[in-house]
Amino acid sequence: MTEIQKCKWWGWGSEGQSYALPDPQSFWSFLENSLGPLQKGSRVASPNDIQLPPSRLASADLEELTELLGDNAVTTGPSDRLVHALGKSYVDLLQIRQGRVSAAPDGVVFPEKEEHVQALLELAHQKHWAIIPFGGGTSVVGGVEPMPDSQPVLTLDLERMNRVLEIDPVSNTARIQSGIRGPELEAQLYANGFTLGHFPQSFEFSTLGGWIATRSAGQNSTKYGKIEHMVVSLRIITPTGILDSPVVPADAVGPSLLQCLIGSEGTLGVITQAVVRLHPIPQHRVFATYLFPDFAEGVSAVRQMLQADLRPAVLRLSDPDETAMAVLLGKSPQSSFKELLGHWYIRFRGFDLQRSALLILIFEGTRNLVSAARRETHRFLRSGLYLGGHPAREWMKSRFHHPYLRDDLLDRSVMVDTLETAAPWETLPTLYAAVRQALSESILSTAPGALVFSHLSHAYPDGASLYFTFMARQQAGGELEQWQLIKEAATEAIIKHGGALSHHHGIGSMHKPWVQSYLGPGGLAFLEQLKRKIDPENIMNPGKLLGT
Amino acid sequence: MTEIQKCKWWGWGSEGQSYALPDPQSFWSFLENSLGPLQKGSRVASPNDIQLPPSRLASADLEELTELLGDNAVTTGPSDRLVHALGKSYVDLLQIRQGRVSAAPDGVVFPEKEEHVQALLELAHQKHWAIIPFGGGTSVVGGVEPMPDSQPVLTLDLERMNRVLEIDPVSNTARIQSGIRGPELEAQLYANGFTLGHFPQSFEFSTLGGWIATRSAGQNSTKYGKIEHMVVSLRIITPTGILDSPVVPADAVGPSLLQCLIGSEGTLGVITQAVVRLHPIPQHRVFATYLFPDFAEGVSAVRQMLQADLRPAVLRLSDPDETAMAVLLGKSPQSSFKELLGHWYIRFRGFDLQRSALLILIFEGTRNLVSAARRETHRFLRSGLYLGGHPAREWMKSRFHHPYLRDDLLDRSVMVDTLETAAPWETLPTLYAAVRQALSESILSTAPGALVFSHLSHAYPDGASLYFTFMARQQAGGELEQWQLIKEAATEAIIKHGGALSHHHGIGSMHKPWVQSYLGPGGLAFLEQLKRKIDPENIMNPGKLLGT
Repeated sequence: MTEIQKCKWWGWGSEGQSYALPDPQSFWSFLENSLGPLQKGSRVASPNDIQLPPSRLASADLEELTELLGDNAVTTGPSDRLVHALGKSYVDLLQIRQGRVSAAPDGVVFPEKEEHVQALLELAHQKHWAIIPFGGGTSVVGGVEPMPDSQPVLTLDLERMNRVLEIDPVSNTARIQSGIRGPELEAQLYANGFTLGHFPQSFEFSTLGGWIATRSAGQNSTKYGKIEHMVVSLRIITPTGILDSPVVPADAVGPSLLQCLIGSEGTLGVITQAVVRLHPIPQHRVFATYLFPDFAEGVSAVRQMLQADLRPAVLRLSDPDETAMAVLLGKSPQSSFKELLGHWYIRFRGFDLQRSALLILIFEGTRNLVSAARRETHRFLRSGLYLGGHPAREWMKSRFHHPYLRDDLLDRSVMVDTLETAAPWETLPTLYAAVRQALSESILSTAPGALVFSHLSHAYPDGASLYFTFMARQQAGGELEQWQLIKEAATEAIIKHGGALSHHHGIGSMHKPWVQSYLGPGGLAFLEQLKRKIDPENIMNPGKLLGT
Repeated sequence: MTEIQKCKWWGWGSEGQSYALPDPQSFWSFLENSLGPLQKGSRVASPNDIQLPPSRLASADLEELTELLGDNAVTTGPSDRLVHALGKSYVDLLQIRQGRVSAAPDGVVFPEKEEHVQALLELAHQKHWAIIPFGGGTSVVGGVEPMPDSQPVLTLDLERMNRVLEIDPVSNTARIQSGIRGPELEAQLYANGFTLGHFPQSFEFSTLGGWIATRSAGQNSTKYGKIEHMVVSLRIITPTGILDSPVVPADAVGPSLLQCLIGSEGTLGVITQAVVRLHPIPQHRVFATYLFPDFAEGVSAVRQMLQADLRPAVLRLSDPDETAMAVLLGKSPQSSFKELLGHWYIRFRGFDLQRSALLILIFEGTRNLVSAARRETHRFLRSGLYLGGHPAREWMKSRFHHPYLRDDLLDRSVMVDTLETAAPWETLPTLYAAVRQALSESILSTAPGALVFSHLSHAYPDGASLYFTFMARQQAGGELEQWQLIKEAATEAIIKHGGALSHHHGIGSMHKPWVQSYLGPGGLAFLEQLKRKIDPENIMNPGKLLGT
C-alpha cells in the first residue's frame, strides 16, 4: 500500500479514479437548481504545505522502538504522520483541503507479528504513550485521529499483518490477520472457492480488523449479516495481556466475550486476528429492480418479504429523492431514447416519478433456492413495477465508486456527508421523516438549498437501516460550524426517535457525546468497566468510544 | 403455578405424567442387558421428611419485606423454601430422593412489578443478603441453589411477572415480562398469529427470563437461532440501577450491551423484561426422516445441507446407540409387523442397523420456500435412506416427555444424566469420540455396564452441538462421587478438544471450575469486570458464573 493510495478520498492521487459522471452537465445543472449557484471550492492543500506539530518522540524512544520492531518499522516522517493523522470523514477532508491538521501521531509503527504488538503495548503502557490501531484509515466518525493535547501518540498500522493464516474447508471458516484489505481478502478466499460476503462501500481500502472494530455492515448484509455475525472468534492484544475467544459456533458461557470485544474501536486493545465464517462462492445470482409508487409502499413490501424468510443478499430501497439522483447518475446521453420509453411506460402505469421509490435486489446462492426465493419474492412486490435486472446490475458495477464523487463536489464548494441509523419497522417511518426534516431545516438555516436523500438497506425481519446523504453549498469560512450544526440536529432527531446512534460506522470521537443518552443512564458506565482493568492507563485509542 | 408443579422431575406429583413407555418389558430388558441387573432404588423422600436449615430472617426483616412487597409476597414456609432450594439436575434429584438438602433460601419473595424488584435489590444490597433470581427452576447446572455457608439468601421468584406487555405486529416483536413460562407465552403469541420458535426440552416449566439468563437453545434453533439471537433488547435491574438496552435491530455502538447481559445467570441483576423477535405461525410444515449407514456419513450430509443455506427448524441426527434407543422407545407391541417389514427393507438396502444413524428433519415456514428447501435437501441426503415423515412426527409429539423417564430410572437405581457441547465441523468427530470415550471409561470404572448415546442438533453452517445422554447402575452409597467422577472426565475431554463448555445449559455452580480454562487466561477476569461495579457487594446469585 503506497501512501498515495491511503490518501484516496482526500483529493490527492485521484487521477483516473475520480467518479465518472455519465452526463456531467445534467448533474451539475441539477445540483445548481437544487442548491443554488456553485463556485470553485478551496484548493486542495499540497501535502508539503501542511505543517504538523513536531513529533514528541526522542531519539532514544525511536531507538527503543526500532530495537523492538526491527528496521523500517518505525517512522516519524511527516508524510507517514500526515497519512495517519485523519480518517476519511467530511470533517477530515475539510482539514486536509484547508491544510490545517491540528494533531498527528508522533510516530507510526508497522508491526509484523503479534509479539511486536505485545511488546509495543507493554512499552506504551510503561511510558503512558497512546496507541491508535489503524487499518484502512477509512473511519468517517473520527476513529483514528489523535486527540488534541493528548499524551504522545503512536499509530499502529496493521498493514503488514495481512495474511490468511488458515482456511478450514470443512467448517467453512478461516483464520485471518486483521490488517488484510477487502480485495486481497476476497481474492484469496475466492481462489479457495469461498467468499466472506462482506462488501462495505470502503471495501477497496478498509480491513478485516477495522470492520470488526467498528461493527461494519457490507452491502450484502441482508443475507450474510453484519461483521459481528460473521466472526466466530477473535484475538485481541491489550496492554495487560491477550484475550482469545473460544472457537465454537455458539455457547452458553455467560456474557459473550466475543461480543464484548467486537466493536471496541481500538479502545480495549489491538485486534490481531479473527476466525470468520465463509460461504461457498454463489453458484447463481439474480438481479431485480422494482419501482414503487411511493417510499411507504416500498417499505411495507420489503418488510413483508423479510418477515417471510426471504433474504436477498442486497436489498436497497431508495426514497424518491435518491431515486431521482440514481436516474441522474445512471443517465448517459446515449441512454436517452430507452429512458424516454421507460418514462413513458412508467407514467402509463400511473406512477408519479417525483414520488417513486426504486428497489434493487440481488439474490445469490444455490440455483434452486435462489430461483424459489426470486419467485416467492415477486408475490410481495406486486404493488411495484418490475423494471428488469439492468439497473441492479449497473448499481453493482459502480457500488464502490460513490465516495470518489466527494472530491468533485468539494472542488465546487459542496458540503456532502452521509449518516446512518436503524430502527424497528414500526418506528422507521417516523424516524425517516424526523431525520429528513432535521437535516433539511438545519441545512436551510445555513444555505439557500438542500439535497437530502436516503435509502433503506441492511434489512432484518424486525427492522432496517436508513442511510442518509445530504448536500448543500458550503458556508464559506464556516464550513466546520455549518456541518456541526447539521450533524447535531440529525443526531438529536435519531436519539429522540429511538434510532440506532450508528448502524455500521461506529462511534469514534464524533458520536461519543451521544453514547450515554443512547445506552441509557448506566449503560455506558457499565461497558466502560471492560476497559478499566485491561487498559488502566487509558492508552488505547483515548478519546474514542470508551474511556476519556 | 402450584408448588407440586414446580417439583415435576423430582419424583413428586408425577402421577399421570410419568413417561409412557410403549413396551416397558423390552425397554427394561435392554437396560439390564446393557447395565447389569437393576434393583429397586432409594425411596423418594417425602417433602415432610426433609429438614431444612432454619431461616435466618428475623421477624423485623420479614416485616420490612412485607412493607416493600405487600401481603402474600414473602414467605419463609418450609415447602416454599424447599421448592426453591434446588434445580432439576441429576445431583438435585439425588439430594431430594435422599432427603438431604443442605442449603435452602432463607425466604422466597414474589415481586409483582419492577419497582418491587428494585426496592428488594436496594434492601438486599444494604443488608448484604444474597438474591437468587428464579424462573422455572429447571436449571441442570446448579444455577438456582444457595451456596453452602453463604450470607442470608432470598430467592426472587418471577412467576407473578409473567405478562405479554405489548405485541408489535409491524416489527414482529413483543415486549414480554421475564417470568412467563413456555406454554403461556406461546398460547398468547399464537392467538396473535405468532410464535417465538423457542422450544427447549424444559419448555413446559422454564421461563423467558431463564432462557435469556442461560443462553438457552430450543429444539427449533437451526432455523430460529438460540435465545440470544431472538432477543432485541432487555431490561435488567441491578443492585445499583436499571440497564435497558436500545430497541434496535442492530447497531454499531461499541461492545454489545445486550450480549453482555444475556447469559448473565442472575449474577449481574434480575432480567425483568425483554423485547423478542416473533415469527408468523408457520403456514406449512414438512416432516422427514432418513437413516444413514453410519454417523460420520450423516454428519457430513447435514453439514453440507447447512452450508448450502438450508435451515430446517429441527435437525437431529442420532448416533447408532441413540438410534437403537429411539427404535426401542418408539416400538410398541402393535408396531411389530410394520417394523419387521421396515427392518427387512433396511437390511435389504445393505444397512447395518447396529451402525445406522437416524436423522429427523422438520421444515417450517411459507409453503413455497418449505417445498423448495425440502426438495433441495434431498440432494444432500442421497447417502441416507428416506423413511418418510412418521418417525419425525412421532418425535415431535413426545419431545418434552423424556425428562419424565428420569423418575422411573432413578426408581431402579439407574444414574441418568445429559450434557452438551458444540464445536466446528472440522473437530466435531474427534470431540464426539473423546467425550464418548471419557464417559464410557469413567462409567465403567464405577459400574458393570454403560450406556452412552448422543445426537447432533442445533446445527450451524460452521459447526453443531452434540448432546450426550449417559446411564449406568448407581454406585450405592457413593452416587454423588460416581457422578462427579464421570462429569469431570467428560468436561475435561470437552475442554481438551476445543468444545463449548456448555452450548445451552449455562454454567451455574457446576461448570464454574472450568470457565477459566475455557475462556483462556484473562477471559473470565475480563468478564468479571462487568460485575464489579454494578454488584459491588456480590449479592447477585453468588457462587455462580461471575464473582465468588
